[in-house]
Amino acid sequence: MKERTERFGVSMESSLLKKLDAFIAGKGYSNRSEAIRDFVRANLVEQEWGENKEVVGTVTLIYDHHALELPKKLTDLQHHFHKEIISTTHIHLDEHNCLEILALKGQGARVKKIADRLIAAKGVKHGKLVMSTTGKELV
Amino acid sequence: MKERTERFGVSMESSLLKKLDAFIAGKGYSNRSEAIRDFVRANLVEQEWGENKEVVGTVTLIYDHHALELPKKLTDLQHHFHKEIISTTHIHLDEHNCLEILALKGQGARVKKIADRLIAAKGVKHGKLVMSTTGKELV
Amino acid sequence: MKERTERFGVSMESSLLKKLDAFIAGKGYSNRSEAIRDFVRANLVEQEWGENKEVVGTVTLIYDHHALELPKKLTDLQHHFHKEIISTTHIHLDEHNCLEILALKGQGARVKKIADRLIAAKGVKHGKLVMSTTGKELV
Amino acid sequence: MKERTERFGVSMESSLLKKLDAFIAGKGYSNRSEAIRDFVRANLVEQEWGENKEVVGTVTLIYDHHALELPKKLTDLQHHFHKEIISTTHIHLDEHNCLEILALKGQGARVKKIADRLIAAKGVKHGKLVMSTTGKELV
Repeated sequence: MKERTERFGVSMESSLLKKLDAFIAGKGYSNRSEAIRDFVRANLVEQEWGENKEVVGTVTLIYDHHALELPKKLTDLQHHFHKEIISTTHIHLDEHNCLEILALKGQGARVKKIADRLIAAKGVKHGKLVMSTTGKELV
Repeated sequence: MKERTERFGVSMESSLLKKLDAFIAGKGYSNRSEAIRDFVRANLVEQEWGENKEVVGTVTLIYDHHALELPKKLTDLQHHFHKEIISTTHIHLDEHNCLEILALKGQGARVKKIADRLIAAKGVKHGKLVMSTTGKELV
Repeated sequence: MKERTERFGVSMESSLLKKLDAFIAGKGYSNRSEAIRDFVRANLVEQEWGENKEVVGTVTLIYDHHALELPKKLTDLQHHFHKEIISTTHIHLDEHNCLEILALKGQGARVKKIADRLIAAKGVKHGKLVMSTTGKELV
Repeated sequence: MKERTERFGVSMESSLLKKLDAFIAGKGYSNRSEAIRDFVRANLVEQEWGENKEVVGTVTLIYDHHALELPKKLTDLQHHFHKEIISTTHIHLDEHNCLEILALKGQGARVKKIADRLIAAKGVKHGKLVMSTTGKELV
């Protein structure tokens, strides 16, 4: 069953509204409501991580798979944290460089800790955590 | 003369709207329109810096005023860039530490360059640029 | 053949060094050099995106797969941009929510544009682009 | 009395070191140690705010001083939080737009709360909090 949708009015100066419409067109949003719902959700997801609820995160890693012991270390870490790591995608960028993307689900502070450990591993050239959401509390 | 204000409808699922209202109350916004206009403007200000228009920035610096030659260096830099630096506020945090806040106005890339130079000065413990706006194109 | 490594001295106040060591231990870095190389690379990757070189990015999307026409729209977009999208991982978080992670490679501005379009699609609850690197110019 | 400085070696691949040196020159750092100390301190300041110690923050506000009741509201808020607000600088950008920069000192969560209230005030076009440091724990 689909959730009930409400409609409310927003007042905005003509010139600001014009700029909003240009912004929306540039990004490819289908309409104002969709853009505004996105602004709202982005702010809410940020809060979820502060409150340490169950969250979803992804970790992007770039590394040279020839780096001494790194593949083994990454595998060990992933097994150690297997409860939170729900998937790993590995892409061969070129002869040396790998892109590895991990999906994690768990309590916020724990997911941050795991991301820290992966990113700090010797041989990882670049690493970043995306703090996202299980989507459960967001429509 | 005050600019004309328009009103448009936004549709949103009840549960999302409830969360938005809680967010708004937490932050202290007076109403939904005010919060949504803020979300819009924050996105627009980000764009202004990319387009290299005239912008306003502030630079926050923390430093020890006993740091060898730093006060002289900061003064020299500020005079060199006097066209963009419109004011400096200096606060004595304790016997050693100063907080200095500079207001800058100019072309985006130029303001970034000046901020880089100030923040990189030897003896500056912490420095940050806020990318803001002249407000001219924003109501 | 492994690249030649150089060694240089860094001077740091004892108290700052102590804090650095605590930070390193907390994050799980194996030694100071590894942490410092990471700080350096993080700053360099940021620059690569400004210079519009070939980059790697990942896009994290959370959406409800029941959202009207969204799965079709995401598939269409991905085919349209198939030259840049090198892989997609799809995870079923619960009965409703999906996590989709895309790996992209291409010119910076183009990758940003594609990320914008995916994130703006109606029904996407949360989306984020990670700006990473091909690793080619980074050891 | 000046604090004792230690010196330690950092090993880095030649090509990465070359890029670091170019980065340093671009930003205007006087030498490698200065840049590396800055990277370290930036990471430490971030932690201070997480630990909710006494911190220093600055708030940048852009607003139209003709905005109904805004000047009064901002003054009221500032008096209400006078214990944390240590200074205010006001700059007339043009006939309409003001830049106001506030310096705050206090416990992290409290400073964030005050910044939220100021930024959310009706009529503020753009606002941003810089999370900085008292400098006490950083050399």
